[in-house]
Amino acid sequence: MAPYETLCRLTRETAILQSIEALIGWDERTYMPPAAGEYRAEQMTYLAGIVHQRRTDKRIGELLGELATSPLTKDKHSDEATTIRQLQRDYIKQIKLPQTLVEELTRASVLGQQAWVEARKNNDFPSFAPHVKKLFELKRQQAEALGYKSCPYDALLDDFEPDALTADVAKVLADLRKDLVPLVQAIAQAKKRPDASILTREYPTAGQEAFGKAAAAAVGFDFHRGRLDVTHHPFCSGMGPHDCRLTTRYDEHFFPSALFGTLHEAGHGMYDQGLRPELYGLPPGMYVSLGIHESQSRMWENLVGRSRAFWQHFFPKFRETFSSARDVSLDNFYFAINSVQPSLIRVEADEATYNLHIIVRFELEQALLSGDLPVDDLPGAWREKYQQYLGIEPTDDADGCLQDVHWSAALIGYFPTYSLGNLYAAQFFEQADKDLGGLATQFSCGDFAPLLQWLQRNIHHRGQCHTAAELIQLVTHKPLTHAPLIRHLRAKLEPLYGLA
Amino acid sequence: MAPYETLCRLTRETAILQSIEALIGWDERTYMPPAAGEYRAEQMTYLAGIVHQRRTDKRIGELLGELATSPLTKDKHSDEATTIRQLQRDYIKQIKLPQTLVEELTRASVLGQQAWVEARKNNDFPSFAPHVKKLFELKRQQAEALGYKSCPYDALLDDFEPDALTADVAKVLADLRKDLVPLVQAIAQAKKRPDASILTREYPTAGQEAFGKAAAAAVGFDFHRGRLDVTHHPFCSGMGPHDCRLTTRYDEHFFPSALFGTLHEAGHGMYDQGLRPELYGLPPGMYVSLGIHESQSRMWENLVGRSRAFWQHFFPKFRETFSSARDVSLDNFYFAINSVQPSLIRVEADEATYNLHIIVRFELEQALLSGDLPVDDLPGAWREKYQQYLGIEPTDDADGCLQDVHWSAALIGYFPTYSLGNLYAAQFFEQADKDLGGLATQFSCGDFAPLLQWLQRNIHHRGQCHTAAELIQLVTHKPLTHAPLIRHLRAKLEPLYGLA
Repeated sequence: MAPYETLCRLTRETAILQSIEALIGWDERTYMPPAAGEYRAEQMTYLAGIVHQRRTDKRIGELLGELATSPLTKDKHSDEATTIRQLQRDYIKQIKLPQTLVEELTRASVLGQQAWVEARKNNDFPSFAPHVKKLFELKRQQAEALGYKSCPYDALLDDFEPDALTADVAKVLADLRKDLVPLVQAIAQAKKRPDASILTREYPTAGQEAFGKAAAAAVGFDFHRGRLDVTHHPFCSGMGPHDCRLTTRYDEHFFPSALFGTLHEAGHGMYDQGLRPELYGLPPGMYVSLGIHESQSRMWENLVGRSRAFWQHFFPKFRETFSSARDVSLDNFYFAINSVQPSLIRVEADEATYNLHIIVRFELEQALLSGDLPVDDLPGAWREKYQQYLGIEPTDDADGCLQDVHWSAALIGYFPTYSLGNLYAAQFFEQADKDLGGLATQFSCGDFAPLLQWLQRNIHHRGQCHTAAELIQLVTHKPLTHAPLIRHLRAKLEPLYGLA
Repeated sequence: MAPYETLCRLTRETAILQSIEALIGWDERTYMPPAAGEYRAEQMTYLAGIVHQRRTDKRIGELLGELATSPLTKDKHSDEATTIRQLQRDYIKQIKLPQTLVEELTRASVLGQQAWVEARKNNDFPSFAPHVKKLFELKRQQAEALGYKSCPYDALLDDFEPDALTADVAKVLADLRKDLVPLVQAIAQAKKRPDASILTREYPTAGQEAFGKAAAAAVGFDFHRGRLDVTHHPFCSGMGPHDCRLTTRYDEHFFPSALFGTLHEAGHGMYDQGLRPELYGLPPGMYVSLGIHESQSRMWENLVGRSRAFWQHFFPKFRETFSSARDVSLDNFYFAINSVQPSLIRVEADEATYNLHIIVRFELEQALLSGDLPVDDLPGAWREKYQQYLGIEPTDDADGCLQDVHWSAALIGYFPTYSLGNLYAAQFFEQADKDLGGLATQFSCGDFAPLLQWLQRNIHHRGQCHTAAELIQLVTHKPLTHAPLIRHLRAKLEPLYGLA
């Protein structure tokens, strides 16, 4: 067999094992009996070991060596060149990391998460601080082992947003912050306020489930190739070319949580379902980056799901489904689901303030990594930044720097991808609206297929054939900027809050 | 590491992969999206390949060679000797089979099942006959490759009922038939008949589910270490030392199907949960044989679940749960769930006639394997035996020799384990009743723990430290005979049908 075919075969076999990892991880979070957790960890660890062995197998290195100058690499964006380039990238990263460091990181992250759970419960940052120090120290070692262009954060960011540079991300998020802070402040002082109590009436779970499934199916999630279950922390997980599973949670007294959560996960799911199935497990059949993945979920959740046009179509069904909302007008409902309110907790934040939560974390984790911010000073720095960007600050660390799992799990460089997702979403959406001529009219008729097909054609089908930066340039003819997101937020929020 | 520890480590690793196979098989039958089937087959095949490789690895053979004369093998029934003996047994069987035969059998069974589905649908035995010929021919080759004591059927039976001999099984089933046929005939002619319509009233699914789960939990199935889902074909599958999953199906107009199905699967499940978890994946932590497994399911389904004492405890709850049954008396209900009626379909047969369905199949598959019965004559031979043993015969083959999947799936030697299960169940139960002094009184108070603990102590905890034949002798001080089952059936049925 030719080296390219052998490389693909080995990679597809590894993908089978990874898809099984995803499935047993899904089962762990959905249906696994309580007492089965310990053995499940053994199953996961054993599979992860085989996968790691296969990904760092010398045979892969040899095949990649043979293919380095192959004519297949000529056309950079072809499936073959992409396969070789991306697998080379993955292999180099894998073998650069000393086994001892990988093991230390795994251990530190397990212990870190345990300590975090306790620290958050007891509002006790000092007990968690030694873990943060250890984790950032190990991540510095990881960055040194991997190498980087300008700063160690580059190396870590690359795990989540491949090929992105810290300086570029910092620039676009700083631009965003500059425009977002005054907008959020203006809204905070606006006289017009939405009636948020509309959303906390009685919304029975069965109705929410039916409504959410119907909405996800209507926008294009294929339930023949996926499903929707219930978990405390919603997620989307792909476990095969035709098997993508979403989860959500139902709060009978807070309508937005399940529906927008479902649309968010369905957005991830439609990206997964839009990848070319025949390339499953190979880079041209895989998602580009977490930022691009998040752009899909945010687009369906916010740019579609919170649009007036979407509700022009769905509102009659909404009122029919929920007897408690029979007297609500579309206008009041639309304002309520788009209310903006500075808050302390990231995962509960609205579309506008969410990004400020991210910017706080992005700036702090860079300072922690470089050593500019001593770990012991984190709680104070956190309060300062919240005051500065959101105008409020937490009274305790549990609602402050202890609220997220990420740092305890060694996920440093992950946060910015959430806001990159919002930025990519707005810029792609603006282009799609231009290309397709009036998405709002289509949505108001319940027609979401043109947008989905546009995303499939321009993003999903391309897999990793382009980097995120190449993709946004290729599709929107511009590099990523903050302007489309700001335009979108102003266009929606200023009229609602009477600021226009 | 010493050879014994190495052998155990390798075996436990293989068990991890097998437990994952079980989990993804469970998922396939419960929650997998429809379009995911093709890739699921790839995942299953790939895992099965790794498992087979590991089980036939030369390293296992070498370790077993080193251990053959180890002092660990001295005490035959110790965990260590059992591990070595049973792994040796498994290894020898695995390597005796030529790879080409294994592959041919896999292919023939896939094609056989496809052909069977069509043939059954179209009542077209001739289109299925070539597959039966091929499959029995390959099974003859398998028997020759494995070797046997007296007849080729011995070698096949051993896959399902290890160490059992055809002649012994034939003897006990012939004894059973001799006593069972006249009993069933007498019942068929009895004047007293149950009012079976009680069972076909309205039984809403939600009530059945709650009742079934409560009953399974009450008899001792641990939902902390397991769960119950819905599938068309009920099953029980273990996928870890603390993860055992049952399925059932609900028919709103036929009460017995879900409840007795649930108790049946819970019986399998309690056996699984009664194995020593610290020995998971090793022979002393594994079930003895399909016959012993079936003895546990049949005991909880029939000897417990269809007993008057069980319903003395559960009947008030039953009447409370199902408004349609408020006017039913315990006596009439008890008679209805124990009605005996010769019928054509095995899986719908009652406790008494079920064994006659098995005996037909057991006799016919032996004749097919030996060549005494030409495949083309199977439909006629089937009708003849049904007439002889059950007094009725099918008008078409779909309700006759085409009704079961087993032969099409190359499962030859499997059928007798169903009846062995009934025989073992009755004999164990009689002994437990003697040892524990009056199970009926305990059941009528809702106390099922003494029986379960007796089963754990005498059967579950022993794993494969004894063969089935050794186990029945050890526990009941007698070899397996048909007498306890016949005693049980007569004691229950003769009074009900006024034959006493």
